[in-house]
Amino acid sequence: MFIKKFFSNKRFFSRSIFLFKHRNIMVPNFFRRNNKTSPFEFPKIQKYDFSMNNEYPITDENNIKDVYSVIPSINNYTNRTHTCGELRRHHVGKNVILYGWLEYKRLNKFIILRDSYGETQLIFSNEESNNDTLFEKVPYESILQVKGKVVPRPLSMINKNQKTGEIEVEVESYVLVNRANNNLPFYIREFQKAKESLRMQYRYLDIRFPEMQRNLRVRSKLLMRMREFLIHNHFVDVETPVLFKATPGGAQEFIVPTRFLGKFYSLTQSPQQFKQMLMAGALDRYFQIAKCYRDEGSRPDRQPEFTQLDIELSFTDVNGVIKLIEELLTYSLSGFCNNIPTEFPKIDYEEALENYGSDKPDITVDYKLQNCTDILKDNSKLNNTHDFGAYILIFNQNSSSKPYILPKQLVENNKRIASQFSEAKLIQSKIIRKEWPEKMSKLFTNYEAIRIIDKYNIDDNCIAFVTYGLKNEARTLLGKIRLEYINFLENELEIRNLRKKGFYFLWVLNFPLFELNKESGQLESVHHPFTAPHPEDIQFLKHNPLKVRGLAYDLILNGNEIGGGSIRIHDPMVQEEILDMLHIKRESLQHILEMLGSGCPPHGGIALGLDRFLSILLNTPSIRDVIAFPKTVEGRDPVSFAPSEVSDEILNMYHIRTNTKKL
Amino acid sequence: MFIKKFFSNKRFFSRSIFLFKHRNIMVPNFFRRNNKTSPFEFPKIQKYDFSMNNEYPITDENNIKDVYSVIPSINNYTNRTHTCGELRRHHVGKNVILYGWLEYKRLNKFIILRDSYGETQLIFSNEESNNDTLFEKVPYESILQVKGKVVPRPLSMINKNQKTGEIEVEVESYVLVNRANNNLPFYIREFQKAKESLRMQYRYLDIRFPEMQRNLRVRSKLLMRMREFLIHNHFVDVETPVLFKATPGGAQEFIVPTRFLGKFYSLTQSPQQFKQMLMAGALDRYFQIAKCYRDEGSRPDRQPEFTQLDIELSFTDVNGVIKLIEELLTYSLSGFCNNIPTEFPKIDYEEALENYGSDKPDITVDYKLQNCTDILKDNSKLNNTHDFGAYILIFNQNSSSKPYILPKQLVENNKRIASQFSEAKLIQSKIIRKEWPEKMSKLFTNYEAIRIIDKYNIDDNCIAFVTYGLKNEARTLLGKIRLEYINFLENELEIRNLRKKGFYFLWVLNFPLFELNKESGQLESVHHPFTAPHPEDIQFLKHNPLKVRGLAYDLILNGNEIGGGSIRIHDPMVQEEILDMLHIKRESLQHILEMLGSGCPPHGGIALGLDRFLSILLNTPSIRDVIAFPKTVEGRDPVSFAPSEVSDEILNMYHIRTNTKKL
Repeated sequence: MFIKKFFSNKRFFSRSIFLFKHRNIMVPNFFRRNNKTSPFEFPKIQKYDFSMNNEYPITDENNIKDVYSVIPSINNYTNRTHTCGELRRHHVGKNVILYGWLEYKRLNKFIILRDSYGETQLIFSNEESNNDTLFEKVPYESILQVKGKVVPRPLSMINKNQKTGEIEVEVESYVLVNRANNNLPFYIREFQKAKESLRMQYRYLDIRFPEMQRNLRVRSKLLMRMREFLIHNHFVDVETPVLFKATPGGAQEFIVPTRFLGKFYSLTQSPQQFKQMLMAGALDRYFQIAKCYRDEGSRPDRQPEFTQLDIELSFTDVNGVIKLIEELLTYSLSGFCNNIPTEFPKIDYEEALENYGSDKPDITVDYKLQNCTDILKDNSKLNNTHDFGAYILIFNQNSSSKPYILPKQLVENNKRIASQFSEAKLIQSKIIRKEWPEKMSKLFTNYEAIRIIDKYNIDDNCIAFVTYGLKNEARTLLGKIRLEYINFLENELEIRNLRKKGFYFLWVLNFPLFELNKESGQLESVHHPFTAPHPEDIQFLKHNPLKVRGLAYDLILNGNEIGGGSIRIHDPMVQEEILDMLHIKRESLQHILEMLGSGCPPHGGIALGLDRFLSILLNTPSIRDVIAFPKTVEGRDPVSFAPSEVSDEILNMYHIRTNTKKL
Repeated sequence: MFIKKFFSNKRFFSRSIFLFKHRNIMVPNFFRRNNKTSPFEFPKIQKYDFSMNNEYPITDENNIKDVYSVIPSINNYTNRTHTCGELRRHHVGKNVILYGWLEYKRLNKFIILRDSYGETQLIFSNEESNNDTLFEKVPYESILQVKGKVVPRPLSMINKNQKTGEIEVEVESYVLVNRANNNLPFYIREFQKAKESLRMQYRYLDIRFPEMQRNLRVRSKLLMRMREFLIHNHFVDVETPVLFKATPGGAQEFIVPTRFLGKFYSLTQSPQQFKQMLMAGALDRYFQIAKCYRDEGSRPDRQPEFTQLDIELSFTDVNGVIKLIEELLTYSLSGFCNNIPTEFPKIDYEEALENYGSDKPDITVDYKLQNCTDILKDNSKLNNTHDFGAYILIFNQNSSSKPYILPKQLVENNKRIASQFSEAKLIQSKIIRKEWPEKMSKLFTNYEAIRIIDKYNIDDNCIAFVTYGLKNEARTLLGKIRLEYINFLENELEIRNLRKKGFYFLWVLNFPLFELNKESGQLESVHHPFTAPHPEDIQFLKHNPLKVRGLAYDLILNGNEIGGGSIRIHDPMVQEEILDMLHIKRESLQHILEMLGSGCPPHGGIALGLDRFLSILLNTPSIRDVIAFPKTVEGRDPVSFAPSEVSDEILNMYHIRTNTKKL
C-alpha cells in the first residue's frame, strides 16, 4: 500500500521545461552544510528523568545540560542538506544536496531519487540527459549525489499524493556515488514483493521496502517509549549475562563449548535467575530489553533468538505488576494505536477454559463455549469418565452475512484435530431444529436434544459443535474448534465483521501452579519452579497439589500470549518444598536457595515477548517481518548461510569433535 | 565512603522515649496505598521525540499522550508508602509502611532499616522490644515490613549526615517478611568490603553495597541518556543477530553447535556486517547497545561478553561521525561529570606515536617523548638499522614533590619490558649534568651527551630514559616506559599532582590501513577489512600499501581506548582488492560484496566500549565493578559456577563429543 504512492505521479509522462531559466542563479558556499555550523542544540530534558539518585551523585544535579528544545535536523552529521522526503513548496529557490537511490527514470529527463524518508523528482537539462551515461547506463538502485535547486512544479503537474509532489529539483550536477549491479534479485519499485526466501537472503534489499522501514522504525520507537516509561518510573536497566550455566536436562538450551575440557556455557533462555538475584541485591526496580535464546528445533514463527521486555520489582503483588504493565502499555502505545484502555479486562484461568477452551482466549470474537454438562451428564452413552464435561459452541447465523456452512473438508480437518484428544469427542452439526433430535438420536435422547435447542436458543441453520468427555479435554478441544471455525468464516467465507477491530488485551489469572505430565506421572510447573503458590491454597500443597493456584498472570493480546509472569517464591523453605515436589535436585539451584536465604524481599515480575507483540501491532504475517535479520524456520541465517562448518583447529581448542554420520 | 554514613548516628547510644504518646492516634484506612488511587499521571513528553516517522504513521500524531509532567512515585506498584531514604521532617505525623533490610539493632529499641535509597531509624516500644523475638533472634539482613508513624527526633539527636536524620519511625507493628540465614558470607554494614572472589560468588549481597548500587544505577541512566540523544537525532535502534556465521579462522569466536550435523553458529564479536547491511538497506541512521562476545581466554579486565554502543550512518564522513560522538558524549555526560568540552582534541596516529609512543596516548600527564634522532643518527654504535630513531623522555623534578628516583626494582622491570623489543634498546639514567657525558661515554660521544643536556634543558637529578633502534620500536618502547614511570611516581612515590584531574577525551586519526604481520610477512588490517582507505593514499595501495592511511578514528579517554570506528568501503571493487591484499577469500564475504554491489551508500560508524567507559567514569578498579554479574578472569560465572558439564544426551542432540584428556 505504501509502494503505490511512489508511482502515482502522472507527470512522468509529460513535462514542460520552462523552469530551466532558474538554473543560473548561483548561491556560493551554500553547500558548506550550513545547518551544521551552528553550535549543537541540546534537546530540553526533564531534570527528574536523568538526575542521579539522591544517594549517589557524581556531580551537581543543577549541572545537567538543559539548554534547548530544538529538534535536531535529520541531516546532521551527513553531507546532504535534505532527505528525499523533506522538500516542500517553501523550499523553492533553495540550493540542495540530496543523496539517494535511483528509483526510476523516464523520458531521459526525470529521475525519482529515493531514500527511507521519501522520494524526490529530479529534472535534468537536455545536455545532461543527452549525455546518456546516466539515463542509459546507470542501473536502478545505484546511489546518486545530486546538487541542484528546488523549483515548483507547474500547477497541473502537482502530485497531491506525494509529500514532495509540489516541487522538483533542477539538477546542476550529480555524482554516481556507487553503482548498483544490473539484475538485482528484485527491485524496490516493483509492486509485487519477492517471495520470502529471496527477501530473506537479500535482506538489505528487502529492508528498503517501506513496510520493513516502518516495522523497524516503529520497533525502535516503541521500545524507546517503554524504556522512557520505566526509567521515568525509577526502574534500572541492568544487563544480565547470556553465557550461563547449563540447566540439567535443559533440552531447549543452546550450549557453548569453552576452553575448559568438557565444560559448556548455555545461552540464557531468560534472565529469570539473575533478575531474582537483583531483587535480593536490593536493586528493587529492574528492567531489561533482553535477547533470549531457545533451541526449539523447527517450529513455525519461532526464532532461536528473541527479545523480551523483562521486568521485576520488589515489595509488590499481583495487582502491582498488573497496574505497572497496564500503565506501561498505555503510555508506550499512545501515538501508535488509538483507544488503548488504561485498564485491561481480567479473566480467571478456569473461566477462560470454561468460556473459550483456551488459556489465551481470543476475545475479539464473541462466540463462547457453553457448558452443557448438566444436560448430558446422565447420558450413559457419553459419560464414562470420572470428571465428565460437555460443552457446546453455537455459531448463530449473522443475518447480514453469507449463510454459515460446514463443508466436508472442514469437518474432516476438525476430526483430525479431535483425534488428538484421547478422552474427548466432537460432534459437528448444522442444525435444523425440527430434524435435529432425530438426527442426534444415536447419541442424545430426544429430551436432551430438545433441551439443548431450547436452552441455547438455537436457530435454524446455525452451526453447532459439541464436545464431551474428560472435562479439560472436552473444553480444550472445543476451544480449538472455535478458532478453526472462526478462521474458516474469516478466510474462506470472507466474513469481515466477525472480529472486533483493534487491540484487545486480557489478563489471565489464577493459573494452576502444577500440571501432571501424563507420561511421567510427575508434577510439572505450569509457569516455572519459582512461581509462588497462592496463599489461600498453601493448605493443599501437600495433599492436593493440582488444586493449588499460582500467583501467575499471562497477558493476552487478540488471542496471543504476549507476556507472562508471577509473584516469585521468596521463602527458601517453600522453594525447597516446591523443588522437591517437581523432582528438581536442590543442589542444581543451590545458588537460588542461598540467595533466598540471604534476605530476599518479596518480589514479582513479568516478561513481554516483543517480537510477537510487534508482529500483532503491525499486523505482519510473521514475526520475521518485525526482526531486521531473522532466521528461517529451520534456524538458518539466510544472509550469511549460518550455521556452517568450523575448522578442526577451532574444534580442538574447544576440546570437541563432531560425530560422524554413523553415530 | 558511603557506608560510614550509615553508622554515624550517635543516637544509637541513648534515647528518651517521650514520643511514644503519639502512638494511639489511629488513621484508619491510611494504609490503603493512598498514593496509588489517583489515576496514573503520564510524564510530559516531547512530540518530536516519539512521533512516527512522517512516512509511516499508524495513527494520528496528535493522539500521543502528553498529559502530565509529574514525577511518578518510586513507591508506585509496591506495597510500601515510602522508601527508607525518603522520610523528612515534613513527613512527621504521617503513618507509613516501610520495607527493608534489617541493617542494625541497638539497645533493644532501635533498628536501622535499609533499602537501596537510604536508611531509616525505627524505634520500638518497650513491650515489643522486651518481647525479644525481633531484637534477639532475627538475623541482620532479614526483610521486615514495618507500619508506624513518623516522629521527629529530639533536637540533640538530629543526625545531619543522614538524609532521614531528622526523623524516626515509631513502630506500630512489624512483620518478619523473610528471615535471613545467620552467618552470611559478609555483611553490608561492615566497613571493610569482602575480598573480590567472595563478592563475586555472593553477588546478590555485594550489589547491596552503595558503590555497586551507584555503579549499576549510573550505568542505566547514562545508557538511557545515550539512547535519548540518538533517538532524538533520528537514529533507529535495531537489534542484530547474535547467532551468526563462523568466520574462517575466527579464533576468538565462541561457537554454538546446532542440530545440523557438523554445523555451528558463532556468537557475533560485533554487529559490523549487519550494520553495514542496514546502511545498504536504507536504514541510514542506526544504533544499538549491543552485547558482543569474544573468547580471548584469560585476559585481565576483559569479559567474554561485553557491551558496546554501536553506531552507523550513511552519507557521512570522518568529521560527521566525530561531531556526532562529541555531541552524544557531551549530552550524555552532562549531569554526571563537569566540564566535558563540546569538542575533543585530535591527534594524528603518527604524532601520537612520536609524542607518546602509543596510539592511545594518556594526555592527563604532560611528560612527552622527544625525538633525538638528529643528535644520535650518526652514532655508529647505536645506529645499525635502516629506519633508525632515537627518543628521549625526561622527568624533570617537580620542585614541590619528593625527589625522583630510579630504584633497582624499577630498572629491572623496565629492562624486562625492553627485552620484548628485539630492535630497540633502552637507557635509564638519573642525570647529574656534570657527570653524565662521562657516564654515557660508552654509548654517546661527549658532544652528543652535551647536546642532549643542552637541547632538552636537563636539570640535575632529573630522570631520563632514552630509546633507540628501529624507529617504531624505539618510540613504542619509550611509550611503555613512560607509563611505567608515571605509575611508579603515582603509586610508589605517591606524587598526587602529576595527573590532571577529570576526563580527557582525545581522537586519534589517520591510522595506517595495514600493518605487517612479522611472522607471516602478510598484510593485516589495523582496524578491520571494511575500513576505507584515505582517498589521498589510494595511489599507494598497489605498490606501497603500508603508506596508505585508513579513514579510521579511535576515541581515547585518559589513555584508554574506549571506541573506534571508520568510514567503510562502499565500492565492491575496492573491497575485493582489499580482501585480496589481506588474503581473505572473497567467497567467505560474498554476502558483503553482493551487498556493496546492490546500491550501498557511503557510510561509516563507530563502536564505544561501554564497560570500560563506565569503569573509567566511575573510577572503579576493574570493569567487573560496572557489570552486574561479571565473569572471573578465567571466564567462569562465580554465581552459578558456569561453565559446567552437560549430559551425553544433549551432546548427542548437537552431534558432538568431548575429547578425552588424552587427545
